[in-house]
Amino acid sequence: MAVLVGGVGGARFLQGVRELLPEADVSAIVNVGDDVWMHGLKICPDLDTCMYTLGGGIDTERGWGRVGETWHAKEELAKYHAQPDWFGLGDRDIATHLIRTEMLRAGYRLSTVTEALCNRWQPGVKLIPATDDRCETHVVVSDPDKPGERRAIHFQEWWVRYRANIDTHGFATIGADEAKPAPNVINIIESADVVLLAPSNPVVSIGAILAVPGIRGALRTTPAKVIGVSGVIDGKPLRGMADECLSVIGVETTAEAIGRHYGARSATGILDGWLIHSTDTAEVPGVEVRSVPLLMTDPPTTAEMVRQALDLAGVAL
Amino acid sequence: MAVLVGGVGGARFLQGVRELLPEADVSAIVNVGDDVWMHGLKICPDLDTCMYTLGGGIDTERGWGRVGETWHAKEELAKYHAQPDWFGLGDRDIATHLIRTEMLRAGYRLSTVTEALCNRWQPGVKLIPATDDRCETHVVVSDPDKPGERRAIHFQEWWVRYRANIDTHGFATIGADEAKPAPNVINIIESADVVLLAPSNPVVSIGAILAVPGIRGALRTTPAKVIGVSGVIDGKPLRGMADECLSVIGVETTAEAIGRHYGARSATGILDGWLIHSTDTAEVPGVEVRSVPLLMTDPPTTAEMVRQALDLAGVAL
Repeated sequence: MAVLVGGVGGARFLQGVRELLPEADVSAIVNVGDDVWMHGLKICPDLDTCMYTLGGGIDTERGWGRVGETWHAKEELAKYHAQPDWFGLGDRDIATHLIRTEMLRAGYRLSTVTEALCNRWQPGVKLIPATDDRCETHVVVSDPDKPGERRAIHFQEWWVRYRANIDTHGFATIGADEAKPAPNVINIIESADVVLLAPSNPVVSIGAILAVPGIRGALRTTPAKVIGVSGVIDGKPLRGMADECLSVIGVETTAEAIGRHYGARSATGILDGWLIHSTDTAEVPGVEVRSVPLLMTDPPTTAEMVRQALDLAGVAL
Repeated sequence: MAVLVGGVGGARFLQGVRELLPEADVSAIVNVGDDVWMHGLKICPDLDTCMYTLGGGIDTERGWGRVGETWHAKEELAKYHAQPDWFGLGDRDIATHLIRTEMLRAGYRLSTVTEALCNRWQPGVKLIPATDDRCETHVVVSDPDKPGERRAIHFQEWWVRYRANIDTHGFATIGADEAKPAPNVINIIESADVVLLAPSNPVVSIGAILAVPGIRGALRTTPAKVIGVSGVIDGKPLRGMADECLSVIGVETTAEAIGRHYGARSATGILDGWLIHSTDTAEVPGVEVRSVPLLMTDPPTTAEMVRQALDLAGVAL
């Protein structure tokens, strides 16, 4: 099974997958559009959120970062006036970034590094970055320092520093022209029994994975059914600021609008099925829509969502 | 004034210098022989010990590292089985290493980076690495894994991991052939009113500074008097494992033996004067020896040592 995932929502969805199918061969293709270099460290927020969540190291209250985290290095960096000072760089988390950065500098691919880090965390599903190359989401905003001018800032700056609360004009994926899917990603999609899209942000998580050349094509040609899971509950995004992202690209925050944005494989899109929340409705031409409870309260509840998605795909358990 | 210094002892000696002469133009030429790359970070133990001590950020109990330090990144690195796991890498300290590493990778010299870091700490004396180049102390030991064979390990491994408690055959300075003194170091020594050697380890601190080509020559030709301060108290080293280092090079741990090891400028050495502890005795041909209390109990007491050293040099205060 292949699952396309982002950060917090994707990680919880994977917990449901693992709960339902502890023995299955599951590959999670993880968004790297949020990845960023800070203070000389390569930081991969979505890979780490998945790894920590599935490996039992996540701070469950916050949803990201390490449980029992401290922030002393961050405090000291701020005292040196080192920029950026708005990013949550935890002391425990830094160990992960140090190992990743050192391995990358030694010439290892991000996918290999991720495998090495997962040796410790044993997430139970295979975590694979969508690409080993730089393919970063940047955001075109009105320059807060120069009225009338626009500039592109890294997605993290837009999301964490400005909380998306800044005049925004569009997204740009830096590096997309030359990025290639990580080894085996295309093969995994093409040989999967089913492909699921987690209820992650349709723009900056799933959308950023689709921005890696070749992945969208593989979703369109794989013999497996492709089932999307809506991140909208009662017309509102499950968490985070998906509505801010959607409004930038002119898509409403409704299960129907997002389903249509993904589109049907029988047309020019990527979906065979679209799983939406019980209280939402959607009509997506060419796509089978099913509504079930979509709250990821705990892994057993999420497992039931996954079971419904597989059922929609016609996969026997 | 120029002062050649190592870590803990050097830092405390500089506190005495600053106490005695708060307005003086003091340049500390700091040992970088202990410097090491670990987990992708450039670590400069002696520069940091001086910077933190003079800047009020040192853990005074331990003598090194940051006050209020935590060790979470180190704990996590160990859980990843990342080597080395025997080095005290503190969370607050990491911020310093991150900034240094990022600046070095951006092409700045270590001396420039040190200046930038000191903008925060305001040590009150100018801290200058002896060299911007790699000039690292390694130690030739009997290989613990291969009986009968020898190998060279980094000084930090010898000092911190093995506590010098391993069969040792000699020191090697890696990079000494091509290292140059940091900008201005030679000029500072040549134009100083007096040059002091702090009571630092004569082998791996002062000795490692002298291993940078050009520095020993500058000490021999400067018109300033060069005064050494003994790190021996009652025939024992003030702290650390100076005796282990001295025995490797066949020098006794006595004020006289170390004074003779440094030698007289009038012969082939570097000393005009040699300040030893009240209860020690030393005769060093061609060198004026004076004995005074040398315990660096607190900055005022240390200031009195510095005053005696300057008096021995004939410098008017």
